[in-house]
Amino acid sequence: MGIDKRKNDHIYLASSDLSQVGTALFEEVVLIHNALPEIDFSDIDLSTNFLGAPVKAPFGIGAMTGGTELAGKINAELAKAAEEFGIPMYVGSQRIALVKPEVRWTFEVVKQNAPSIPKIANLGAPQLAQLSEKQLVDWVVQAVDMIDAYAVAVHLNAAQEVVQPEGEPSFRGVLEKLKIVKRAAGRPLIVKEVGNGISKEVAAKLAEVADAIDVGGLGGTSFVAIEGARAADAWLQRRVAETFKYWGIPTAASICEVKSVYRGFVIASGGIRSGLDGARALALGAHFFTMSQPLLKATLEGRLREEIEAVITEVKIAMFLTGVRRPQELAQVPRVYGPRLRAWLEQRGTTC
Amino acid sequence: MGIDKRKNDHIYLASSDLSQVGTALFEEVVLIHNALPEIDFSDIDLSTNFLGAPVKAPFGIGAMTGGTELAGKINAELAKAAEEFGIPMYVGSQRIALVKPEVRWTFEVVKQNAPSIPKIANLGAPQLAQLSEKQLVDWVVQAVDMIDAYAVAVHLNAAQEVVQPEGEPSFRGVLEKLKIVKRAAGRPLIVKEVGNGISKEVAAKLAEVADAIDVGGLGGTSFVAIEGARAADAWLQRRVAETFKYWGIPTAASICEVKSVYRGFVIASGGIRSGLDGARALALGAHFFTMSQPLLKATLEGRLREEIEAVITEVKIAMFLTGVRRPQELAQVPRVYGPRLRAWLEQRGTTC
Amino acid sequence: MGIDKRKNDHIYLASSDLSQVGTALFEEVVLIHNALPEIDFSDIDLSTNFLGAPVKAPFGIGAMTGGTELAGKINAELAKAAEEFGIPMYVGSQRIALVKPEVRWTFEVVKQNAPSIPKIANLGAPQLAQLSEKQLVDWVVQAVDMIDAYAVAVHLNAAQEVVQPEGEPSFRGVLEKLKIVKRAAGRPLIVKEVGNGISKEVAAKLAEVADAIDVGGLGGTSFVAIEGARAADAWLQRRVAETFKYWGIPTAASICEVKSVYRGFVIASGGIRSGLDGARALALGAHFFTMSQPLLKATLEGRLREEIEAVITEVKIAMFLTGVRRPQELAQVPRVYGPRLRAWLEQRGTTC
Amino acid sequence: MGIDKRKNDHIYLASSDLSQVGTALFEEVVLIHNALPEIDFSDIDLSTNFLGAPVKAPFGIGAMTGGTELAGKINAELAKAAEEFGIPMYVGSQRIALVKPEVRWTFEVVKQNAPSIPKIANLGAPQLAQLSEKQLVDWVVQAVDMIDAYAVAVHLNAAQEVVQPEGEPSFRGVLEKLKIVKRAAGRPLIVKEVGNGISKEVAAKLAEVADAIDVGGLGGTSFVAIEGARAADAWLQRRVAETFKYWGIPTAASICEVKSVYRGFVIASGGIRSGLDGARALALGAHFFTMSQPLLKATLEGRLREEIEAVITEVKIAMFLTGVRRPQELAQVPRVYGPRLRAWLEQRGTTC
Ligand SMILES: Cc1cc2nc3c(=O)[nH]c(=O)nc-3n(C[C@H](O)[C@H](O)[C@H](O)COP(=O)(O)O)c2cc1C
Ligand SMILES: Cc1cc2nc3c(=O)[nH]c(=O)nc-3n(C[C@H](O)[C@H](O)[C@H](O)COP(=O)(O)O)c2cc1C
Ligand SMILES: Cc1cc2nc3c(=O)[nH]c(=O)nc-3n(C[C@H](O)[C@H](O)[C@H](O)COP(=O)(O)O)c2cc1C
Ligand SMILES: Cc1cc2nc3c(=O)[nH]c(=O)nc-3n(C[C@H](O)[C@H](O)[C@H](O)COP(=O)(O)O)c2cc1C
Repeated sequence: MGIDKRKNDHIYLASSDLSQVGTALFEEVVLIHNALPEIDFSDIDLSTNFLGAPVKAPFGIGAMTGGTELAGKINAELAKAAEEFGIPMYVGSQRIALVKPEVRWTFEVVKQNAPSIPKIANLGAPQLAQLSEKQLVDWVVQAVDMIDAYAVAVHLNAAQEVVQPEGEPSFRGVLEKLKIVKRAAGRPLIVKEVGNGISKEVAAKLAEVADAIDVGGLGGTSFVAIEGARAADAWLQRRVAETFKYWGIPTAASICEVKSVYRGFVIASGGIRSGLDGARALALGAHFFTMSQPLLKATLEGRLREEIEAVITEVKIAMFLTGVRRPQELAQVPRVYGPRLRAWLEQRGTTC
Repeated sequence: MGIDKRKNDHIYLASSDLSQVGTALFEEVVLIHNALPEIDFSDIDLSTNFLGAPVKAPFGIGAMTGGTELAGKINAELAKAAEEFGIPMYVGSQRIALVKPEVRWTFEVVKQNAPSIPKIANLGAPQLAQLSEKQLVDWVVQAVDMIDAYAVAVHLNAAQEVVQPEGEPSFRGVLEKLKIVKRAAGRPLIVKEVGNGISKEVAAKLAEVADAIDVGGLGGTSFVAIEGARAADAWLQRRVAETFKYWGIPTAASICEVKSVYRGFVIASGGIRSGLDGARALALGAHFFTMSQPLLKATLEGRLREEIEAVITEVKIAMFLTGVRRPQELAQVPRVYGPRLRAWLEQRGTTC
Repeated sequence: MGIDKRKNDHIYLASSDLSQVGTALFEEVVLIHNALPEIDFSDIDLSTNFLGAPVKAPFGIGAMTGGTELAGKINAELAKAAEEFGIPMYVGSQRIALVKPEVRWTFEVVKQNAPSIPKIANLGAPQLAQLSEKQLVDWVVQAVDMIDAYAVAVHLNAAQEVVQPEGEPSFRGVLEKLKIVKRAAGRPLIVKEVGNGISKEVAAKLAEVADAIDVGGLGGTSFVAIEGARAADAWLQRRVAETFKYWGIPTAASICEVKSVYRGFVIASGGIRSGLDGARALALGAHFFTMSQPLLKATLEGRLREEIEAVITEVKIAMFLTGVRRPQELAQVPRVYGPRLRAWLEQRGTTC
Repeated sequence: MGIDKRKNDHIYLASSDLSQVGTALFEEVVLIHNALPEIDFSDIDLSTNFLGAPVKAPFGIGAMTGGTELAGKINAELAKAAEEFGIPMYVGSQRIALVKPEVRWTFEVVKQNAPSIPKIANLGAPQLAQLSEKQLVDWVVQAVDMIDAYAVAVHLNAAQEVVQPEGEPSFRGVLEKLKIVKRAAGRPLIVKEVGNGISKEVAAKLAEVADAIDVGGLGGTSFVAIEGARAADAWLQRRVAETFKYWGIPTAASICEVKSVYRGFVIASGGIRSGLDGARALALGAHFFTMSQPLLKATLEGRLREEIEAVITEVKIAMFLTGVRRPQELAQVPRVYGPRLRAWLEQRGTTC
């Protein structure tokens, strides 16, 4: 069936280099080496909270999948690792399970394998925009139940919708619908992008409704690139995907944009490729970060635990070498920015 | 005959990569992604006006050809597509038809195939400069009649004239002649460059006479490069073409220069290679944009409609992803500029 | 035995290109050519003092080795050359000789072969941090005696300790221990990095205890890279080394950081690859510079004297072409900095 | 004989790419295109004066050679062309003819073949510095007579002298000697560099003695590179040449430095590779420019007249496209500078 094939295509394409586009600008965030850290490595404590829930690290598994056999297996693997490391986990868009009850299990494996960690439900804005208030409430309640969610994430994916033939580029009324989602969920609401970033103008609009913003910036997985690669035989779609390949706000810039106007919980994602990138995101003011593609790839290659371990080690090393014991202290460490990030911030009237 | 060969050479060389030179600096115009556009894609309406005439898109076919068998066929193709899409169309320089009446048909096909759209007549400044006032009035009237023109464009092509052996690098008195053209035409006068751009100093001089300025900036088709490529056996001409290959004002910079001093209608052209580039030109303040070489190439390859369709789709996508419904709103969307464009504007004392 | 293999591995890896990482930013320090130097080359006099001791050049041999048969031979070679040229010489970390008395000779060769020059003892901060005050005093006294040291250097190598499996990433209490070292030594105390640089924050802390700071900045030999290369079969270690490969403060930037807050003697090291780089370091305000890897490589290739001769000649040429007779005058010569160094200084609130 | 071989080596190496080093930064001087020049190409008049003498173009043949059979032939060719085009010509250093009278003819051919143009005598500063006042006066008088010189140039070549084994890096007392030269010559005195540029500090010192400064900046022929290439078997010399390869002030920057403090006649040279570069030099404020290596190469390849013709044509094209009739008007045309030149000027406290 169409949607099955698309979901699996997304998984395979996302794990190839074709899907990785541009730069998140983390290479332009240079944390200043502290030659005299005055701490021991063993003093470092990564534990923190995720929207109020205690977690073992400022780091979680990003929103990815569900809905197919393969997706179900991946979700189970990710959930086991998340439980083991005590870190939060998002699921991919749950719409498929709401319209096709026989695939609910591909999401339910998450609560079964990860009972104790914060799990995040996931729905897409353009789909929600088309539901009546009643249906919407029903979907949200079901999505939460399906994984025993701690929070609900709604993803904004305008670029993806507009470049794919099956897309639904309909964003009229989304902001109003988000308010309904929040009420229906009775849980923290996260609004997230999927790879094109959140601007300060959007963050300001979201301030009244979102408990958290997940920036989902440019520089890692690109759905524009993925949809372009899927369109091998459709000239217009390939052309359009090529034209808009680098569209979006690099993750580092997006964190600064959001922080400049938004007081809620900020999650960094998009192109974070090491614990050092994660530490840089925290230094820019994010409270938390997630990775998606690298964890998907590691799962498919059977080395998920090693990857998570590496990320955690790298965050700790960055903290050791800047002399801080707790993740939130990274926000104060001295740093130097590169020219592109500086020019971006200057022109956008924000500091970081 | 010489002029026939030159016209066809221009067509073939223009469609090769040899003719494409430098950068228009559109890659330095980053429009800020709007993750929450609050519109539906179907809300977007490209219709606008071209110097007062209603058209279906802020986009037209640039000045190219006429005068030879091949040129006549191309003009007919372009005219049919322009009519179909409801967009304006320039013709190439009509001098050849004024001195060789037997090739008038190569321009007349345009009015025959595109009765309802705005058509733009075309004459070259250095030739006009050498005519008596009487002849000049006669030429303008004939050129307008030939295609039932809505407006008249006079092109300034100093670099082309000066690097080609047959060139007429004579620009004394051009400004005075433009006033005569305007009176004779009784229609809007467009003054355009052909690939080296209009500076703010020139725009200020043109302000008293031109209803529209078409910037024709550096970064796309280069007549210096084309004349250099034609001069396979003339060392001096090749050398000079190589030396002046990158001479000119990049289109993005030229739009800003012109906008800083000129209140009339501004048309962007030169190196616009997608609807996204077009949207960037509109964001910089242009009212309209044209493409030449990509449409010529598409015509020769039998995919003109697909190309126009793609450009229109790309403009719409850029509008969707910045959350605007009408082309003119693009001028207000947030953006970030790259270092070369910023340095240019700063040194030239203009903003954008 | 483990430590023997590690020491020799360090020597061989350090002499390969794998160990050389990033840029010290000396290519961004352009000394202005003086076409009219108004001196003769023979007027130039490199003699200066090293922490009060007269030496023949503002240049010495950096801290490297000791503890193995090979290291002993290298130390003897380096010492002979240092004596011949009348320049100071550091030894490598002496801990190995304190715990394994049978290898003391590999350090003692230095005083035997270089009786008259200033020799610098060497101990590592993380090891010192774990000693009792009594042991510490004992170690320092032994280290000084072993080479008849003029000064004692303690190295801060947090990055190296944290990326290697055998590492001791323990820096709690180091500052207090440094005070004990200083008292015990009764000689000038040098605090040095080993390739990741000293920030102004660290320099300010060291001001109360260090007679000299040796910046040991990024851009030359990298222990992160060396430890990564040693870890051929340990995935996590290789990954972490790759992630932190460019961590640190480029030497040119580090000199400026230190100079902005520290009034003591400043030694430049890390990625100095010619006498011109050395002259640039002096122009930035360093009093002295050292090289390590190039001298190690020259020793292994049997051309140590030629290398030292070249460095000395290059310093003199740089002085001739800026028209100065004495090394300390380089601090006043006109210069232009590149964009990366300027941006660094600007953001860090320091000038140079 | 040694000096013969060296002179011919210089000629052959200079005509190879090995001798061409770095950038003169002319690519960072963008003259703004004037789409409406309001002149005819035939209105342009290149005639100007060279230190008071009328010449046909703001352009001459740089100081190169003399002293060997080959050099004599080259000088005769250059002189014929200079006479034909009515442009000035320097000769190379005349010392060889002062110590070896049998080679005087290699310079005398210049006055024989170019009786009417301004000819410039040439001596080297370090050699002059070693002469008694009496000898010095004698040399100057002889050098002038030898070519019936209109002016005398003394070259400052500190970098060349210091990197070559036969070099005489002696610049003590040069300024005083220049005063004697000026008195003895009774003609305008030009002080020139040979490829490393004149700083504003040096220009200020020269102000009291030099009627003209020829900047001889970095970016074209490099004697450091030439001496390095000659030293195939001398390690130290090759190494030193490699280290100092990019030493010097790029010509564009040097023009601005000199203009900021010096009111005399300014000649641009070093890396000028087309008439467009020449026009840029004039736009920066130079009164005149010379080329050396390209004319040497053209002579050896038998196309000297074509090269001069091309340069003249290019200067005219640059003037046409900026709308100016006379060379000196180029100093007023609008322009934009690139980032390296801007940063240089900013840091050096000069404008341009
Ligand atoms: C295979 C795959 C599927 C994804 N599906 C979803 C999704 O259903 N919902 C969502 O909010 N984000 C989805 N994302 C986007 C990610 O949550 C994330 O924003 C994006 O991948 C950028 O992070 P990365 O560069 O670390 O991969 C998906 C990403 C991948 C790689
Ligand atoms: C084959 C060809 C012929 C052209 N002939 C003319 C012409 O006759 N008159 C004119 O005003 N511009 C002429 N132009 C210039 C275009 O109008 C336009 O300014 C230039 O090509 C830059 O746009 P582009 O980069 O989209 O091609 C011609 C362009 C091409 C490609
Ligand atoms: C083989 C080798 C061993 C080193 N061992 C020590 C050491 O034991 N103690 C120390 O303080 N620095 C040590 N260093 C670091 C150097 O002193 C110096 O800080 C670093 O190599 C950067 O300089 P360079 O780029 O010129 O090599 C060593 C360097 C090398 C190349
Ligand atoms: C072969 C050759 C010989 C030269 N000899 C002299 C010389 O004797 N005296 C002098 O003042 N400059 C001499 N120069 C330097 C030139 O005058 C000029 O400053 C330098 O070549 C930079 O210009 P270019 O890049 O156009 O070659 C020589 C240059 C060349 C190429």
